[in-house]
Amino acid sequence: MNRLEGNWWSEPCEEHGSAFSLKVKSRLHEEQTPFQKIEVYETEKFGNLMVIDGFVMLTSRDNFLYHEMMSHPALYTHPAPKRVLIIGGGDCGTLREVLRHPEVERAQQVDIDEGVTRAAELYFPELCEFNDDPRAELHFADGIRWVKEAEAGSVDVIIVDSTDPIGPAEGLFNEAFYRDCYRALGGNGILVQQSESPLLHMRLLTEMHGAMRTAGFPDVRTLQFPQPVYPSGWWSATLAGKGGVLDQFREVDARNKVYPTAYYSVGIHRAAFALPPFMQEAFDRVRNQA
Amino acid sequence: MNRLEGNWWSEPCEEHGSAFSLKVKSRLHEEQTPFQKIEVYETEKFGNLMVIDGFVMLTSRDNFLYHEMMSHPALYTHPAPKRVLIIGGGDCGTLREVLRHPEVERAQQVDIDEGVTRAAELYFPELCEFNDDPRAELHFADGIRWVKEAEAGSVDVIIVDSTDPIGPAEGLFNEAFYRDCYRALGGNGILVQQSESPLLHMRLLTEMHGAMRTAGFPDVRTLQFPQPVYPSGWWSATLAGKGGVLDQFREVDARNKVYPTAYYSVGIHRAAFALPPFMQEAFDRVRNQA
Repeated sequence: MNRLEGNWWSEPCEEHGSAFSLKVKSRLHEEQTPFQKIEVYETEKFGNLMVIDGFVMLTSRDNFLYHEMMSHPALYTHPAPKRVLIIGGGDCGTLREVLRHPEVERAQQVDIDEGVTRAAELYFPELCEFNDDPRAELHFADGIRWVKEAEAGSVDVIIVDSTDPIGPAEGLFNEAFYRDCYRALGGNGILVQQSESPLLHMRLLTEMHGAMRTAGFPDVRTLQFPQPVYPSGWWSATLAGKGGVLDQFREVDARNKVYPTAYYSVGIHRAAFALPPFMQEAFDRVRNQA
Repeated sequence: MNRLEGNWWSEPCEEHGSAFSLKVKSRLHEEQTPFQKIEVYETEKFGNLMVIDGFVMLTSRDNFLYHEMMSHPALYTHPAPKRVLIIGGGDCGTLREVLRHPEVERAQQVDIDEGVTRAAELYFPELCEFNDDPRAELHFADGIRWVKEAEAGSVDVIIVDSTDPIGPAEGLFNEAFYRDCYRALGGNGILVQQSESPLLHMRLLTEMHGAMRTAGFPDVRTLQFPQPVYPSGWWSATLAGKGGVLDQFREVDARNKVYPTAYYSVGIHRAAFALPPFMQEAFDRVRNQA
């Protein structure tokens, strides 16, 4: 039987009996923080790889997919995204994409673990290009509590760029947290959260839709994109709109953007929200039950 | 370092330093045919897995993505797809999707290796549901020669559902073959071919675009879709249109289709052709050089 021979780093997804592996040259970094274990490897073909508690966080080669799709669709959907709050996102890649938007006046990044950001500064410096931007605020604190204590209506877009819904990130995937987000958001506010794999995690996805609706958001939509280094290589983000207008976006602004993107475009924005029947039918059932 | 422990079957992609693995219960089938080695495994969570020469061909769980996207976009783009020729496709999954179209009067499947079809009948019987359809013809022959000898203008859609461009399938990825396809196709004829991963194989993709255009096809377009068990989990198919009208499709027919699809829909059809900037720019360069 085919087995991997040589210097492979592997992430098994035991629940779904699949695994993804990258061939590595060396381990650059290993650190047990108060919250989690952070490792960085130099891979053969994917640049650097950051791993937290045994799960792939990102690689140099393909993180553009995730970071662009976690930020631009939500920011162009909001009519005037001035105040952005990123929960998690310690690698600063989402922050970078957010700060490419000239409308943004303040971007707060709240990650519980400063170790992630320090490792990113060393091994993914390209993602940290905007960390010194005067609009950027890097806080190392509990994101759940941060949102709970945020002033009502004080944020335009909340981006939940977290690890999987186990461990420190578990409390970011439930109705109580979504209620706090709803309260913290302004009138047209948008919450966007990474929402795992359409092939593997439809149960989580439908639960998120239900919890976001119950928390008060009138419109909830999922977008899909490829993300090769995450389980199944197929990933999603879910948007919840306080104003309920997620099917329109600032198309002219998106078309005239002055910064480069490798994946995001006006066409991709629209395309990403087109869902296959098996997903659409599952979300329709949730909506009809709400 | 994380290593896979236990009963994992792995496909390393050495060129890109990545690997995909599935946990298996047992090997159901092993056969060396005159052309290649065919294996079938029972996996823990992905149903049955067919492997040819060490490469994943398909699993029960996620082959719907590939088979739907290899057939429905091309068939709904053709104004009247009556005569369909499948080159490769021995697992019969593409044939099944093709024969769901009531317009199709004749579907010829030409795979060089009868062993693939016999194994599919045993281990993927759901894909072989239409093998006894009176419109289906299963031929076991060399697809390159078949197309070369086909009567000019005798086919409406050619679907090249082959293995990777090494080994028996190598001759399916070049200008000479595309010229033969062009000749065999009728006036509005469409060629569609699996075209590997946008993340890993852009060089092949741009070469295909160039070769298809040089062979005479005025319009060439690539569509993308998730395919978790193939390298990177992100896959593509490339269409070449003899009539040059690949941006329109029989939307009403697609919307009113009476058979179920899990991934394909009118929205997905349109979305799949939306390409990220890095792909669009590469294809634009090819077109401008032509």
